[in-house]
Order: sequence, then structure tokens, then C-alpha cells
Amino acid sequence: MSETKVYLLDGGTLVMDGLHAFWNAGPSGEIRFPVYSVLIEHQDGYYIYDTGYDLDHVQRALAFTMPTQTKAQTIPGQLSLLGLRPDDINYIINSHFHFDHCGGNKHLRRACTVCHAKALEACACPQPFEIQSYSDLSFAPEIAARRGNVQPPLSTAEIYTPTFQTIAGDQEIAKGVRLFETPGHAAGHYSLLVELSHRQPMLFTGDAAYSQQNLDRMIISSFHLDPVESYKSMQRLKDLAVHHDAEIFCSHDPQSFASYLKAPGFYS
Amino acid sequence: MSETKVYLLDGGTLVMDGLHAFWNAGPSGEIRFPVYSVLIEHQDGYYIYDTGYDLDHVQRALAFTMPTQTKAQTIPGQLSLLGLRPDDINYIINSHFHFDHCGGNKHLRRACTVCHAKALEACACPQPFEIQSYSDLSFAPEIAARRGNVQPPLSTAEIYTPTFQTIAGDQEIAKGVRLFETPGHAAGHYSLLVELSHRQPMLFTGDAAYSQQNLDRMIISSFHLDPVESYKSMQRLKDLAVHHDAEIFCSHDPQSFASYLKAPGFYS
Repeated sequence: MSETKVYLLDGGTLVMDGLHAFWNAGPSGEIRFPVYSVLIEHQDGYYIYDTGYDLDHVQRALAFTMPTQTKAQTIPGQLSLLGLRPDDINYIINSHFHFDHCGGNKHLRRACTVCHAKALEACACPQPFEIQSYSDLSFAPEIAARRGNVQPPLSTAEIYTPTFQTIAGDQEIAKGVRLFETPGHAAGHYSLLVELSHRQPMLFTGDAAYSQQNLDRMIISSFHLDPVESYKSMQRLKDLAVHHDAEIFCSHDPQSFASYLKAPGFYS
Repeated sequence: MSETKVYLLDGGTLVMDGLHAFWNAGPSGEIRFPVYSVLIEHQDGYYIYDTGYDLDHVQRALAFTMPTQTKAQTIPGQLSLLGLRPDDINYIINSHFHFDHCGGNKHLRRACTVCHAKALEACACPQPFEIQSYSDLSFAPEIAARRGNVQPPLSTAEIYTPTFQTIAGDQEIAKGVRLFETPGHAAGHYSLLVELSHRQPMLFTGDAAYSQQNLDRMIISSFHLDPVESYKSMQRLKDLAVHHDAEIFCSHDPQSFASYLKAPGFYS
């Protein structure tokens, strides 16, 4: 693993309204959008940025998002395309803990979860209007218990005790793997920049920008904690892209995602 | 004018989507909602809380809100139902300065405008996503000029120089006329409580609660500056209603508005 590679792991799709995607702007109407994870093969180990959604959870708790996800689009399914197993992953980086970004964490039982301290606090004590977004707490059974969530019974073999490494501020967590604070959509939100040998850096916005159209129109998404910070974070992403000569990869952009190289293909 | 009277002045209607009325919750679909002003006949003078929208401005700048407003639904038209002229009004109280709450200010040329200091700052320096909401600056020509708004040419006789009295905190601005801070929808938002001799106090929410359904479901509107504050302000309104044994009057509630007594009828 001498040269960094980036794999995009297809995680299926969900639906939202155009008024969710573009706050108070729309147009309204159903948008089916992709969910994906970013696997980084790095000399220090395997990192995965976000882990998509859990189909069972979404069907149970957020059926209105009309999930479509095959077995091949789960984290184990995507890793198997690369000959990897869930236990091979060393680090999870969560941009934030909304259900469509942490649903696969629970499969990665040997990984340490790296996240912003405020992101972890937020899912432990969400605002009333954030409860549904933070409804999948399978990545953190202890927080789930504190919030009184009833979890499906676990066999002893299934007990999952994740480890966390909370951080704050902009951080280079491994050589050429940088996290940038882009709060607003959620507390403690991190975007990710990955430097590669043979192409320009890849800047993964996370939910600080669902799509290129959000950035072009400078319209934030309707799911947010702080719209003023959200707006600033979109501007920050644009500035970062210029400063690092990076290509922007948005989190939920149907048009852009269609053109991305997906695993088992990779960027290097 | 020994006994306080409250008149509700019908200001016509506008349209928004259900996803605007109920943030991220809806259901989506067109909602036609009322806009009204509150005239208080008080021993200290005539007070008016909010002044609705200006039809010309809305047709020009926000035609998508599909305004319906007759001449009788303008501020001068409503005042004439009571035998009053615009120059009879002594004080305007603006809950905030979104276009559908200050559009009639310019008719009330002898009134002093009472508002929260932060509300006036906000329309001078709106967030990028608030610019359309703060698009009618006819109530404050000086701020309009600072923001570079081109106003229709005025004849000398039409030059309007409003006076402002900015305040902060909860305030009893006249006996039995109290303003309560309810920010979040907009900076420096004020709700209004009016005590009357023959009935329970009237609590006008302003846009801190568009409708009773917002309060019942505890879902804020999609137009907001700070959703955390907005949510707290809805809870505050409920607490105020209990504490003062007040009846709640929401700002844009089609169902409730149908049952209200409108001018020339009055509450006393």
C-alpha cells in the first residue's frame, strides 16, 4: 500500500424533495440521489469516509425516503468487490452522524471512528428537529442507550463496542488526508481532502454541499442546524478547492455521481 | 379612547408551499394564507402591529407568492373602515421587517416605528438567504439607499422620512401592551400581548408561529435565521399563553383567521 488510492463505494439511493435539496428555493418535486462512501487505501491503513445508510433502519424509520439498495451496495458488499472484508478497515471518518452517513459503521468492528467532538455530542443531544436525522445510533450503542433507543436484541457474538477518536479544528489525520471544518448542516461537520500522486486532490464536501448545483446557486440544503454557518461552509469549500487546486466531489449529486469512477475502479 | 380596543385589519393573501410552512415536514402543496395587521386603539394613541405587504412590490419582486389584495385590503383601505386616515396612526410596531409585515409602513407618515434594534440591523445587513424576505425597504428609505436599492422616483411631496425607536428585551411599551422577544424566524423578532378589559389577553405571535398547527406539531417554518432559537420561541409563546392566560393569534393561519372578528369589528 505505498501509493494512496481512493475508491468510491456505491451505497444505493434515497429520495428527497427539491425543497429539501435547495432550501426555500427548489423547485419542488422528487429527487432520487446517490449515497456513497470513500475508501482510502493509504500507507497507514484503510480509511473510510462515511458509510452510507442501513437499509433495514431506513425502511423502518424513514420509509418516506424510498431507499433502493442491493446487497452489493452495502459496505460489506462494496468491500468484497475489492477483495476486502469489513475487519480490514482501520479507520472510519464520519463527516457527521446523520443516518445516511453512519449506517454502515457497525459492520467495521475493528475500525477506530474518527470524528469531530461536536458531531458526537450532537447525536447524543440532538435538537428536536434533528432527531430523525440522528435516528440511526447503531454506530454508538452507548449513545443509543443514553437516548433510550430500543435496539434489536444482540447475541453475545454481536455486541459491538466501537472506539472513538474525537478531534476538533482542521486536521491532517494522515499524510495527504486532511479534514476541514465545514459546520452548519450539522454540528462538527468535516469535509475531506485527499492528495493523490497522479491527479489533482479530491475534495469531498460531505453534506456541506449536496450537489454542484447547491454550490453554483449558493443555496444550502433545507436540512441544517445553522444556515448562516452552512452558507459560510459552502463558500469555504469553494475557497479550499481553489487554494488546493482540488476537484470537488459532492455527497448527493445525481448528475455528478453518474460520471464518477466507482469501485472496483479507483483514483490514484 | 379610554378603553383599549383591538381591530384586525385584513391585508389580503399570499401563497407558500407546505414545505415552507412546516420545515422539512410539509406535506408539500400550495397553501394560501392570510396577512393581517393589528390596530390597537389605546389611551396613549393608535398603535399598529405589522402593516402587511405592498401589492406592487410583491407583484414586482415576489410574484410567485401570487398575492391577492383589494384596495379595501390595503392599510388606508382598512383604516377607512374605521373612519381613520393613515396620519391618525401614532406608532407602528414591526414584529420584524420581512416584506409581508412592513409593506404598509410607508402610508403611516406621522407614526414612529418601534422595533427591536436587531430587526433594523438585520434588514440593513441581511444574510444572503434573507435578501428576498427583506426586499421591501420602502419603510426605511435610508437603509434602502445604503443597500443600493433603486426606488421609484418620488415627488417632493412624497419624500418619506420615518422615525424609529429601537428597543431590546421584553418591554411594556404602553399600559397593557407588551412586546416579548421571540427570535429565530428573524433577528430581533417581537411577539405582542395586549390586555383588554372584557376578555382574556390576545397574544399575537407574529411569524414566530405562522399557525396553530406549527405550535401543535412544534414544527417551525422553513423561513428562518436560526432554527434552534425558532424552536425555543415557539415554546416561549406556549409558556406565555399559559402564564398570561392569553389567547394565541398566529400570523398566517388560514383556518384560525377565518374565525377571527375583523375590522370594523373589534375585541375589547
